[in-house]
Amino acid sequence: MLHSAAVRAAFYQKNKNIKMNKVYLFLADGFETVEALAPVDVMRRAGLQVVTVSIMGRRNVVSAQGVTVEADALFDEVALEGAAALVLPGGGVGTDNLSAHTALRALLESECAKGVLVAAICAAPMVLGRTGLLNGKRATCYPGCESDLFGATYTAAPVEQDGNIITACGPGVSFDFGFAIVERLCGKEIVDTLRSQMQF
Amino acid sequence: MLHSAAVRAAFYQKNKNIKMNKVYLFLADGFETVEALAPVDVMRRAGLQVVTVSIMGRRNVVSAQGVTVEADALFDEVALEGAAALVLPGGGVGTDNLSAHTALRALLESECAKGVLVAAICAAPMVLGRTGLLNGKRATCYPGCESDLFGATYTAAPVEQDGNIITACGPGVSFDFGFAIVERLCGKEIVDTLRSQMQF
Repeated sequence: MLHSAAVRAAFYQKNKNIKMNKVYLFLADGFETVEALAPVDVMRRAGLQVVTVSIMGRRNVVSAQGVTVEADALFDEVALEGAAALVLPGGGVGTDNLSAHTALRALLESECAKGVLVAAICAAPMVLGRTGLLNGKRATCYPGCESDLFGATYTAAPVEQDGNIITACGPGVSFDFGFAIVERLCGKEIVDTLRSQMQF
Repeated sequence: MLHSAAVRAAFYQKNKNIKMNKVYLFLADGFETVEALAPVDVMRRAGLQVVTVSIMGRRNVVSAQGVTVEADALFDEVALEGAAALVLPGGGVGTDNLSAHTALRALLESECAKGVLVAAICAAPMVLGRTGLLNGKRATCYPGCESDLFGATYTAAPVEQDGNIITACGPGVSFDFGFAIVERLCGKEIVDTLRSQMQF
């Protein structure tokens, strides 16, 4: 329908030097449905190899809106280092679950230090703040969560970028958040193509 | 996070006379991920009782973007008459699957005739067209699908409404499509509240 095969072929033709096109997106019970799946959608259309990773110790994860999604992998069964990007959807309970996962926060810390793109939306930028990754950075989040963006300058922007960190403010900008990641990894041209094909 | 309990309470307080608040959304392999789940998301936030119904004879359904979602029910195990709305997400293969399901098309035909709200997005308005439900109506769809909107006036609008039929043009308007359904069933005020809370 949306010619994603042709889009992907064009992407690979143009991006022969991109080797790291793997993205891990972390799912926990209570995740915001569209904050997770709109980015998965547009990243896969762009040809990125997106793996949804459950941190719950089981494949089936239940969103804040009661949608059960089967994750592609469990946290402990994948070598998560060396990806192009690590992505955190929001949700109140979902963020609490992500924030409580010590190994995830250690991974975010070590990969962010290597320059891997780290992206979080809605309440999830708090996970980055609590891990110390926003120190000295501009960042945004769901209004009310900004006190946990430790050391950051809170800009209240819909989507904010500073260095290798992307943050976004809530479910209403889920697609913009996904497109910001795609633009960083694949370029603006493919984002423009996808926006047009997807009837934005 | 988004105070959905409070929103729901306010909704029920204001809409004591609404008895039919059940919505069935039909899932088939190849459905467009966000075209299905953005409407589910906003309809549930609005307090509607949304049931995702697999037409595949199994609960796990795989989207066009490779996301496996567990449907709430199977087509044959639910009495589908008398709902407030019936909703069809798009997707090329997904629409082929919906269109090939004779019992679904019979249900759409009989319920539409009773005045039940029928909504379809992207390629899925073709299912309505092939079933004869768009005859004499204004309708929209994903560009290129309009020849199967038999008897309709194709308007190319992002979201179109005519009588008890809502159609929409593609994944980029998934939230607008969901909000159009919510507005018809719950009123504009709750849509405005949700748009604000969701950071649109």
